[in-house]
Amino acid sequence: MAPKIALLQVNPVVGDIAGNASKICNFAEQASNAGASLAVTTELAISGYPPRDLLIQSDFVDACYAAASSLQSVIPILTGTPVPPVGERTLPGNGVVRAGDSVREVARKQLLPTYDVFDEARYFESGRGPGIARTIAGLDIGVTICEDAWQHCGATPNDYDSDPIIHIMEWGRQGVVLDATVNLSASPYHADKSGVRIAVARSAAVSLNHPFLLANQVGGNDDLLFDGRSIIAWPDGTVVVAPGWTEGILIADLNSPDDCLWTGDGECTILQPGEELISNDGDLLDAIIIGLSDYCRKSSISKIVLGLSGGIDSALAACVASAAVGAENVTGISMPSRHSSQHSIDDAKATAEALGIEFSIQPIEDLHSSAESALKDILSNGHPVAGENLQARLRGLIVMAHANANGAMAIATGNKSELGQGYCTLYGDMAGGYAPLGDLYKMEVYALAKEFNKRLGIDAVNESTLTKPPSAELAPDQKDEDSLPPYPILDEILCLHIEEGLDATEITAKGHDGQMVNDVLTRLARNEHKRWQMPPAPRVSKRAFGQGWRQPLAARHDWR
Amino acid sequence: MAPKIALLQVNPVVGDIAGNASKICNFAEQASNAGASLAVTTELAISGYPPRDLLIQSDFVDACYAAASSLQSVIPILTGTPVPPVGERTLPGNGVVRAGDSVREVARKQLLPTYDVFDEARYFESGRGPGIARTIAGLDIGVTICEDAWQHCGATPNDYDSDPIIHIMEWGRQGVVLDATVNLSASPYHADKSGVRIAVARSAAVSLNHPFLLANQVGGNDDLLFDGRSIIAWPDGTVVVAPGWTEGILIADLNSPDDCLWTGDGECTILQPGEELISNDGDLLDAIIIGLSDYCRKSSISKIVLGLSGGIDSALAACVASAAVGAENVTGISMPSRHSSQHSIDDAKATAEALGIEFSIQPIEDLHSSAESALKDILSNGHPVAGENLQARLRGLIVMAHANANGAMAIATGNKSELGQGYCTLYGDMAGGYAPLGDLYKMEVYALAKEFNKRLGIDAVNESTLTKPPSAELAPDQKDEDSLPPYPILDEILCLHIEEGLDATEITAKGHDGQMVNDVLTRLARNEHKRWQMPPAPRVSKRAFGQGWRQPLAARHDWR
Repeated sequence: MAPKIALLQVNPVVGDIAGNASKICNFAEQASNAGASLAVTTELAISGYPPRDLLIQSDFVDACYAAASSLQSVIPILTGTPVPPVGERTLPGNGVVRAGDSVREVARKQLLPTYDVFDEARYFESGRGPGIARTIAGLDIGVTICEDAWQHCGATPNDYDSDPIIHIMEWGRQGVVLDATVNLSASPYHADKSGVRIAVARSAAVSLNHPFLLANQVGGNDDLLFDGRSIIAWPDGTVVVAPGWTEGILIADLNSPDDCLWTGDGECTILQPGEELISNDGDLLDAIIIGLSDYCRKSSISKIVLGLSGGIDSALAACVASAAVGAENVTGISMPSRHSSQHSIDDAKATAEALGIEFSIQPIEDLHSSAESALKDILSNGHPVAGENLQARLRGLIVMAHANANGAMAIATGNKSELGQGYCTLYGDMAGGYAPLGDLYKMEVYALAKEFNKRLGIDAVNESTLTKPPSAELAPDQKDEDSLPPYPILDEILCLHIEEGLDATEITAKGHDGQMVNDVLTRLARNEHKRWQMPPAPRVSKRAFGQGWRQPLAARHDWR
Repeated sequence: MAPKIALLQVNPVVGDIAGNASKICNFAEQASNAGASLAVTTELAISGYPPRDLLIQSDFVDACYAAASSLQSVIPILTGTPVPPVGERTLPGNGVVRAGDSVREVARKQLLPTYDVFDEARYFESGRGPGIARTIAGLDIGVTICEDAWQHCGATPNDYDSDPIIHIMEWGRQGVVLDATVNLSASPYHADKSGVRIAVARSAAVSLNHPFLLANQVGGNDDLLFDGRSIIAWPDGTVVVAPGWTEGILIADLNSPDDCLWTGDGECTILQPGEELISNDGDLLDAIIIGLSDYCRKSSISKIVLGLSGGIDSALAACVASAAVGAENVTGISMPSRHSSQHSIDDAKATAEALGIEFSIQPIEDLHSSAESALKDILSNGHPVAGENLQARLRGLIVMAHANANGAMAIATGNKSELGQGYCTLYGDMAGGYAPLGDLYKMEVYALAKEFNKRLGIDAVNESTLTKPPSAELAPDQKDEDSLPPYPILDEILCLHIEEGLDATEITAKGHDGQMVNDVLTRLARNEHKRWQMPPAPRVSKRAFGQGWRQPLAARHDWR
């Protein structure tokens, strides 16, 4: 019987070196108790991924390296960690250190992704070849790090000049027999990403003609999410996949998929050759919840407050918040104005009661009148948007007063469709430390509200909220559709442009009204100023606002 | 007499391909009229620098390349432009296209900076060797792009595996005689940067043994500033430097520094071998003004509104705003509360009158009382910061109402010292589309206020504002020093940590109180959440909040 290899699917806290090291040791001990002879962490598990500019501090790199080198693991362990620069070079490596039996560096990442959410060329120097760990728990193991395996099956947008998988294959041709190759990953989530990751692992296993084991980080770090779903792939195409969104240990029996073991919540899935992972309806909902939950937990925020308008966005945001930090730590405030309908208050209350969160009603009419009176001169001669935004900002003021008084964090409830169109108010409904729905299109918000209801078996988002026409209720009888295309159409236009990169001509050729397409893309560009200050949002789409996303200066106009 | 080479020191608008092309043609015509036979633009002059994720759209790259290739220039011209990927590769190049006589690509940038504010490895593939333009206006010219020249004198933080300057020297040894080497640059400003840039040019000229000509972009694009100061350097160490912060054409007579010519405002400076450029006291002030001015102009914002507290920050911000968009387009609002002193109103008024901006007084007492009464339950049992912040947010509300009503942009008046300590209010004094002082330490704010007074010969910032103890006036008799160290000390601690990368132990060893240093660095880390949503600020220091700047998740705590 071959020694078993444990993939430690951990959720590290960026910058918490001691805490991460302690967690890894605990996991290794559990793995040993469950029969594993060797443990493998995720990428940069000691520092957490992504450490960003912490990597510029050589003290930080040294501390990570020292922690990985001195891990008191009961079994041999391969740990992902920043490793100091080589010789006279200035940049550290994204490496793997062996400990538990002997201590040495065994690999440096060769392919440094520098696109999309990745900026590794900013921080690291490439390794010069794939890694190897010899006679570790009686095995000889190839060692790769995340992107190192992705070039091989053409799953990276850019070209690299080398392919570490082919490099390991060449070792094989030269007589180096490996028992398996492992891959330490921090492969971020977006919808449909796990299928690609499985294809990457299968492709590597086929080419290498031995098992390929991928340990993937889980959890949220700021706006980046990691779904876990660590993988064992065999050359015949059989794959074992760990559950998503939860920590645990996937223990690989290299000879028998049926004897692989998962120690955490849920269970692992065995895929036969050619079989795909069935995507779970609740996956996106899990993503959003863990994004908010980890953002709060990892930065010592325990309470959340939000405005509950009675609309679909704030209703879903309240659901997500109660799942993330516990209903007892969430407060929803209904803040009706003279333009609010009774059903708005009723629907907000229904959501709060169904979830069991604290709820209060704080009418803004008095404050609104006082403000209108104080600002009479300004408002009477200006653009009407000033008066509309006043209401949103008074609500922001109230939510923030509650947050500051009680040490809670406000969350912003806006979605990607309205943020993309600037249909939101700076310092009003955009106020908050995190925007859990900020990368969800409006129709996804509806779908997740239904999914949440189904999961809990309650009407947390009631029928009225799900079916009434969306309205900002900042002016009499105002409806979103007065200013924007119907959401199913708006979402499709935005998605074709943002995710697929199509321009106005190409989108129109797909059957959309040309004038409408132009209006949507113009609003998208004009409102770039406003999005600059949007709170961090968990990234679940192929392309989010953020990173290098910028509209040309020449196209930006609106600031409000 | 050798043909003269014109360096076009232009201020392009990112994304405005047609406008930038037209500007370049006009400059080339002026250069021709002034006797130049050949024109050289700055780096990526056609797209503007930095184009960021616009470069991911192949249509955008193609449009830039087409515009540079079809430039109707009256003299031969070398234009910086994105150039399409080579063969099957996916990433474009950061290139130079020749037009005006024959049309061809002559260079691709070899060294792609990916540190600090730079992320070029995200967007570009490296060129394989330095460029050359043969028999152009009768000259043979080496062609390099910005960073290509910086490795040679050790002025880059990272290592590259090649040195384009040495590569050109090798051509020389092989008998290729060049008349000069040009460098198309978009080299961002920070204080003291121009001295380094001159050293880079001198080093290249000495090694190449022929004149080295560097054309540098001028102006602000979002948070990045470019000071211009294009350079001609000779092998003997003589240098001609164009003025900073203004467009124009530097016409090089390769044989005679004295016969070089500058066509725009100001005049060029001749430095003898070994002589340094005297740094101008007003340089930082120019930087801040052009940052705000270009941000507004390039995104069609013509009016600015700000709260005028009577304190030093808002006073300087008003000065900068009036210099940036004209006093007639600036409105200052004094918003006294029950905690405001009369001198605050008087000093605010004095600044407004000295500058000639519109001024109004909008007391917040009524609104404040209404809000306190409406939020009684929330405020009475909570943290006192909720009540303090309420005042700042009511002021934000008023300023934003004015901005929205009149199509103006609000500016945030905070400085780097208080932003670093979280001594500011989200959606209160942090509200605004741009933070002109956001990268200035408090003592720099004082220095620039004096500089502004001196420049205009008026007391725009009066003696009282310059000398009274800083106070947020959010509580009775509140002083900044109640919560923070004295600013001269705070600034020094922050600067040692942020700019120089020293840790608490190292800063304490420089003579600062250990407890104070720890408190300052702890507040810096805890308030990271808040800075996430700060408006763009012109980058004038060696290291600004922004780019990859992040505190460890584990260290962040405060959100308010």
